[in-house]
Amino acid sequence: MENFKYYNPTKVFFGKDVLEQLCTEISPMGKKALLVIGKNSVKTSGLYARVVSLMNICGVSHYTYEGIKANPIVQHADEAVALAKEKQVSMIIAIGGGSVIDTAKAIAIGYYVNHSVWDFYTQKVAKPTQALPLFTILTLAATGTEMNSGSVLQHNASGMKLGYSAPCMFPKVSFLDPHLTLTVPANQTAFGISDLISHALEQFFGKGESPLSDLYTASVIKLAIKYGQKLMLNLQDYEAREQIMWLATNALNGTLKAGKNAGDWGVHDFEHTLSVLYDIAHGAGLSIVYPAWLRHHQPIINAKLAFLATKVFDIDESDENLAASIFIKKLESFYKLIGTPVKLNEVGILPSERNTILSNLKFNKVNGSVYTLNETDYEQILDRMW
Amino acid sequence: MENFKYYNPTKVFFGKDVLEQLCTEISPMGKKALLVIGKNSVKTSGLYARVVSLMNICGVSHYTYEGIKANPIVQHADEAVALAKEKQVSMIIAIGGGSVIDTAKAIAIGYYVNHSVWDFYTQKVAKPTQALPLFTILTLAATGTEMNSGSVLQHNASGMKLGYSAPCMFPKVSFLDPHLTLTVPANQTAFGISDLISHALEQFFGKGESPLSDLYTASVIKLAIKYGQKLMLNLQDYEAREQIMWLATNALNGTLKAGKNAGDWGVHDFEHTLSVLYDIAHGAGLSIVYPAWLRHHQPIINAKLAFLATKVFDIDESDENLAASIFIKKLESFYKLIGTPVKLNEVGILPSERNTILSNLKFNKVNGSVYTLNETDYEQILDRMW
Repeated sequence: MENFKYYNPTKVFFGKDVLEQLCTEISPMGKKALLVIGKNSVKTSGLYARVVSLMNICGVSHYTYEGIKANPIVQHADEAVALAKEKQVSMIIAIGGGSVIDTAKAIAIGYYVNHSVWDFYTQKVAKPTQALPLFTILTLAATGTEMNSGSVLQHNASGMKLGYSAPCMFPKVSFLDPHLTLTVPANQTAFGISDLISHALEQFFGKGESPLSDLYTASVIKLAIKYGQKLMLNLQDYEAREQIMWLATNALNGTLKAGKNAGDWGVHDFEHTLSVLYDIAHGAGLSIVYPAWLRHHQPIINAKLAFLATKVFDIDESDENLAASIFIKKLESFYKLIGTPVKLNEVGILPSERNTILSNLKFNKVNGSVYTLNETDYEQILDRMW
Repeated sequence: MENFKYYNPTKVFFGKDVLEQLCTEISPMGKKALLVIGKNSVKTSGLYARVVSLMNICGVSHYTYEGIKANPIVQHADEAVALAKEKQVSMIIAIGGGSVIDTAKAIAIGYYVNHSVWDFYTQKVAKPTQALPLFTILTLAATGTEMNSGSVLQHNASGMKLGYSAPCMFPKVSFLDPHLTLTVPANQTAFGISDLISHALEQFFGKGESPLSDLYTASVIKLAIKYGQKLMLNLQDYEAREQIMWLATNALNGTLKAGKNAGDWGVHDFEHTLSVLYDIAHGAGLSIVYPAWLRHHQPIINAKLAFLATKVFDIDESDENLAASIFIKKLESFYKLIGTPVKLNEVGILPSERNTILSNLKFNKVNGSVYTLNETDYEQILDRMW
């Protein structure tokens, strides 16, 4: 195993009606909170009103920053920091999915500095040591951000999308009630499942031998496929919703990476180029890039893929190359089944965009930490996506 | 799934030479520490001197409480609290295995009160809200206490052995260097493996359906058996030592219980009676009680055992009852192979002790939270142990 540090101080309340714990948790943190939300859905669903009502009961007043986009942008984080400073809030409550929570993490660290949060992400300044306490109320099972210290933001002017993390960016408390995901539409549900599977795979392809992490990873992917299929038959299936929600959290809360380095993340880096350029859903981009990336690298990852074939799909096949091919094919079939795209033309990106994409890949120096990518790799992987 | 809370703020440094991080971690906590150690082994191994030297370098002075027993007792914790108060230390550093760390947790909460720590364990007083920061340097892979908030102490005068936990009892930082376990003798190594497997099983038999926790549990047991066998062939096998160390931590750090209630714990409760009465190693008692408990309950846990048979031992057997029997038999064979006892007479407890044990089981109201035990159960389970 590689040496590793494991640290995750986020307190998670999981299950039915866990919001009943909200007052107890936020009350010690002060009297004024910034609520961060997306466009309309948490207002139309009534969740926003419910949270405000709970806050009123425990005497915490609120100011709201709304309008976070699905691919969250730096500008919104900076605007929200200004609001948080003006109102002198002492905590942040994020209600939404990964984009809202990632933005809220940026706001939490931006509160204590006098520059754009983007300066953190570009590593122009040192890591932050202070952040406002962050509470999250999750409405979409996907990114795992509710229980980690990472955040991804997009900077439109530069065409960059960067991930960033610091120990002070862990949410203090996250409330995970699967009921809040029952109204997520089919496509967003599928993109979330694609996202969680990709997180498991990125860490699986990290450096270092870690048998326990590998078995845990296979467990997460196996159940994501089982309950993902079940959920697509009935989006109101509570059991499937709760399984997918906890799987998404597990996929990126540190459980799968112990004994490895942080993971490869080349596929994520590659996908960020697509979502920056075309504003497609991150999970949709990932289900397009992953099969192409797996096939591109197959000769050197056959053994790892054969392991997954056995553990995830119960494939009994001693020929590693064959088992590996079956794994990729079955994963791709699963993506198709749940309705997340596997080819670029499905999301309207045509071969005429080839050079634009390649330029952006080069500009952003897209790479994996273990399976490094050069310009030939870019071309060969990209050409598998049409 | 059952509703659950997941919270584990302990920071773990795992791998070779992680003690190099000691200064950085303890320095912010003050200038005086209480070191807590067992009898002699950490002094003869040189580890104690190394820690003292590191503390000298970072300017933290130390006072040492030594002599913690394998089955740790309340009296030692109370004595150490008195020393900690007298010297006005601001942190505790525990060097050792589960007994030393469990005692250190009691000292950490005892520091802020004026009564015996036993009053916490008997729930005579309310849960503590304050504890001295606790750093642990683990030398034995077994109990998982290095990454949880639990502690078990024995009270000789009353013949009671009780577990206790509170959120403030999590270690702040735990240092897990598998090298420090290379000198653990064969019997203690085997007892540690028995202990970690039993922790996985206790949670597996908790209330609630949690498919991910169940797959995680099977992963832990599978690898404990694989690397346990490997380790017994060569106690200096570093790879096996590191696997067993991380497995033991995982077996009781919350990873396996998400979506369940806290677990059954009837076997642990039963075993505590044995180790209180006869001062046998906890892990040795567990490998005796578990096969008996499993056989006693087999008719109502066949499906669960058949799942483990498949996942742990790759048994392909559609008859659940038969698969369950194979699982128990194979688990028992593994215990024998690694040299941890499966019958009471192996640890010198003869049938003439039957009534003494039964009386103590009744006195302590030994029970599981899911698989409840009455006096007939006590007799039937006990009679399977000779």
